[in-house]
Amino acid sequence: MGALDECQYIVELENGVNLGDCIEPEALAIEDAVRVLLQGLGEDINREGLRKTPHRVAKALREGTRGYNQNVMDIVSGALFPEAGVESKLGNAGGAGGLVIVRDLDLFSYCESCLLPFQVKCHVGYVPSGHQVVGLSKLSRVAEVFAKRLQDPQRLANEISAALQHSIKPTGVAVVLQCSHIHFPDFQGLNVENAHSGGPVSKSWCPSEAFRKMGQSDSAMISAVSSILHSLGENPSRKELLETPARFLNWLMNFKNCNLDMKLNGFVRTNGDFTSNEDRICSELSLPFWSQCEHHLLPFHGVVHIGYYSSNRVNPVGKSLLQSIVHFYGFKLQVQERLTRQIAESVSSFLGEDVMVVVEANHTCMISRGIEKFGSSTATFAVLGRFSTDSTARTKFLQIIPNLS
Amino acid sequence: MGALDECQYIVELENGVNLGDCIEPEALAIEDAVRVLLQGLGEDINREGLRKTPHRVAKALREGTRGYNQNVMDIVSGALFPEAGVESKLGNAGGAGGLVIVRDLDLFSYCESCLLPFQVKCHVGYVPSGHQVVGLSKLSRVAEVFAKRLQDPQRLANEISAALQHSIKPTGVAVVLQCSHIHFPDFQGLNVENAHSGGPVSKSWCPSEAFRKMGQSDSAMISAVSSILHSLGENPSRKELLETPARFLNWLMNFKNCNLDMKLNGFVRTNGDFTSNEDRICSELSLPFWSQCEHHLLPFHGVVHIGYYSSNRVNPVGKSLLQSIVHFYGFKLQVQERLTRQIAESVSSFLGEDVMVVVEANHTCMISRGIEKFGSSTATFAVLGRFSTDSTARTKFLQIIPNLS
Repeated sequence: MGALDECQYIVELENGVNLGDCIEPEALAIEDAVRVLLQGLGEDINREGLRKTPHRVAKALREGTRGYNQNVMDIVSGALFPEAGVESKLGNAGGAGGLVIVRDLDLFSYCESCLLPFQVKCHVGYVPSGHQVVGLSKLSRVAEVFAKRLQDPQRLANEISAALQHSIKPTGVAVVLQCSHIHFPDFQGLNVENAHSGGPVSKSWCPSEAFRKMGQSDSAMISAVSSILHSLGENPSRKELLETPARFLNWLMNFKNCNLDMKLNGFVRTNGDFTSNEDRICSELSLPFWSQCEHHLLPFHGVVHIGYYSSNRVNPVGKSLLQSIVHFYGFKLQVQERLTRQIAESVSSFLGEDVMVVVEANHTCMISRGIEKFGSSTATFAVLGRFSTDSTARTKFLQIIPNLS
Repeated sequence: MGALDECQYIVELENGVNLGDCIEPEALAIEDAVRVLLQGLGEDINREGLRKTPHRVAKALREGTRGYNQNVMDIVSGALFPEAGVESKLGNAGGAGGLVIVRDLDLFSYCESCLLPFQVKCHVGYVPSGHQVVGLSKLSRVAEVFAKRLQDPQRLANEISAALQHSIKPTGVAVVLQCSHIHFPDFQGLNVENAHSGGPVSKSWCPSEAFRKMGQSDSAMISAVSSILHSLGENPSRKELLETPARFLNWLMNFKNCNLDMKLNGFVRTNGDFTSNEDRICSELSLPFWSQCEHHLLPFHGVVHIGYYSSNRVNPVGKSLLQSIVHFYGFKLQVQERLTRQIAESVSSFLGEDVMVVVEANHTCMISRGIEKFGSSTATFAVLGRFSTDSTARTKFLQIIPNLS
C-alpha cells in the first residue's frame, strides 16, 4: 500500500478512543475552565500554540479518566472460561488453585492530591477456583478501569483487587504496584514543612503535600480546577480532593508567564583573539529541568546538556548560572524545541557564538493520553556557530554526553 | 469512588477502539474464515473456549490493521505549530534546523509474509524547516498508521519517513526500526532450505520463508486466509502476499489438534520407599515452548521450568523427554493455565506425584490488540503432591529458577 495516496477513509485518530468531538457539556465546561487557567498564567489564549489547548486538555483529561464510565462486570463476564483443575492427584493447577500472574503492566493514573499523572508498573496475580479462569488480558483491562481515575496508589491497588475478587470469585487475588510520581523541583525544598512541628505527620506519597502553599491562589482558578474535577465525574467535596485544586495550582503557577527576558549584562565574556587551536569544548551535562507542555498542560522534564568552546584563558562559566538559565526557560508553558533554542541563544549571549544544546525529556503527554508510549523519550538539538558548520565538533560533544543513544 | 457499585455507564472496552460490534460484512467474512481454519485444525468450533474465537479474531485483526483506514494528513495537519528558528546568529534550532528525535516508540505490526505479529522499537527524527514544528505525539501517531498494516520492516520504515516528509515538509527525516519477529521452533530446522542451492537466496527477514512447505495445505483453508487478507483491505494478489496464506498455514498447522493423549508407558518410575530426607529437588529449567492462544489465534511462547523430587537412587530423567512433553502440549490451541496443568500431570505420571511446573510466557495477544502491554509477561504455576502442601519445597524450587521475579 502506498504511503498516502491510498488512504480513502478519514478516521479520527486523536486519543485512541474517540470520545465524540467533545461537544458534550462536560467537555465544554473543561474547555472553559482551561481558558481561565491559561489567563491566570498570564497567557494569551489566542496565540497559535494555545488556541486549541483547551480542546486538547479536555480530550486528554476525559480519555485519561475514562475509567469512571467503565464497568468491570462487563469486561470480565464474557471472558470466564471453564478450565479443569487437577483431577486424579493431590495438587493445584489450572482452574482450581493454579496460580496465574501477569507482570509488568504499564499503566498511568492521575494523582488525586495534585492532579498530575503518575506512572504505574502493575503486577496482578490470582488463584482460580470453581474450575474457571479469566482471559489473561482482562486482568490488564480491569486494572485500567481503576487506573484511569483520580487515584492514590494504595486505593488503586485495593480497588483493582476488590474488583477482581468480586468479578472472578477466585480463591485469592494479589496486586502489587510500583508507582512513580513526578519529582518536584528541589529548590522548592525551601518551602518544605518541618514534619515534626505543627499538625500530624503527612503520610501522603504525593510531593505536593510536603510543600507549603505559595500564597493565596486566585479564586477563579481554584473554581476552574474544581469544575474540571466535577466535569470528570468526581465529587470535588470528597475529603481527598478538597486541597487538590490549590495543590495543582501550586504546581501550575511555577509556569506562570513572567513576560521578562533574561538579561545577562555583566556576564558578557570579552571575546579574546585566541585561535581555534587553543580552544576546547567545555560542557555542563545533565542539568535537570521541569517544564509544562503548552499543548496539553502536562509536565515534561528531563536534562539539558550544554557544550561551548572556551580557550584556556577563560574560566568555565559557573554551573549555577547555566542551571538558572535552564530553569528560567523551563518554568513556562513551553514546547521542547523552543526551550532548546532559547537556552542556546541565551547561553551564547555570554559564552560566545559556538554553543550546542541537547535537551532530553520525557513527556507525560506521550504516556498519559491515547498514545501511551511508556518508554519513549525525546531529544532536541540546537547548534550555533561552529557547531552548526563543523560536524566533528558536534560529534565530539555528543560523545561526551552519557547514555545518549 | 467505590470499586464496582458506582459504575453507572456501560462502555464496551474490548480492544480500546470500538469498531462497532463487528457487524460489518468484512468482520463477518473474517469470522467465517476463522471457522474454516478452526475446523481445518480439527477443532470443535462450539467448545466453550473457541465459541467466540472467530469474533475475537475478527476484532483483533481489524484493530491491528486499522492503519488501512487512517489518513496521515488528518493527523498532522492540525498539529503544525509556528516555531521560530535562530534569528540573530549563525545556527540551527527550533523551527529551522533544530533536530528533533523521538526514541523508543513501541509498536507492533503484522508480517506480510506470514501474518504473524512482530514487535517494533521505532526511533523517528526530523529537521524542522519553514519555521514550524509538528506536535511530538504526531510522530508516534504517523508511525502507528503504517505499523497497523501488513508490513515488511524496510517498507514500514520507508512509508513512515515518506509520509512525514510529505506531510511536515521538513529539511529531512530519518526512521530507525528495530524489529523482532517471533522465532520459529528450532526443530523445524530440519526443513530449512539450503540457501545456496536452487533458486535465488532469500533475503527476507521472515523465518517462514526459510522453511519448505510441509505439504499441500487444505485449499479451503488457503481460501479462508486469502479472504481474511481481502477483508482487511489488502489485495491478496499483490506479489508479497501471494505465498502468505500458505506460510501462515504452515505455522498454524503446527497447532493442529491430534486428538491423541501422550502415553508414557515404559517410562513409569517405580516408586521406591525412600524417605523424604534422602530426596532432593531435581529441575529442568527454561525448556522453550511455542503455543497458540485459542482465544485469539495468536502465538504465545516462552519457557517451562519443571521441578520434581528424586532420591539418589533414581537417575534424573532425560531433558529431551521433558522437552518432548512440553512440545506435545504446546503445539495445540491452548491457554497457558491448561498447558501448565497438562505438563505437570503428564510429568508426574512417570516422575512421581511431587511435581511443580512454572510456565513463563509472552502473549502476542497482550501486545497486538487494543491492550498493547508491551513489556508484560505471564507466569502460571502447577503444584502437585508435596509441592502443593509444603511451602518450603515451593520456595526452594522457585529460588532455583533464574530471573523469576
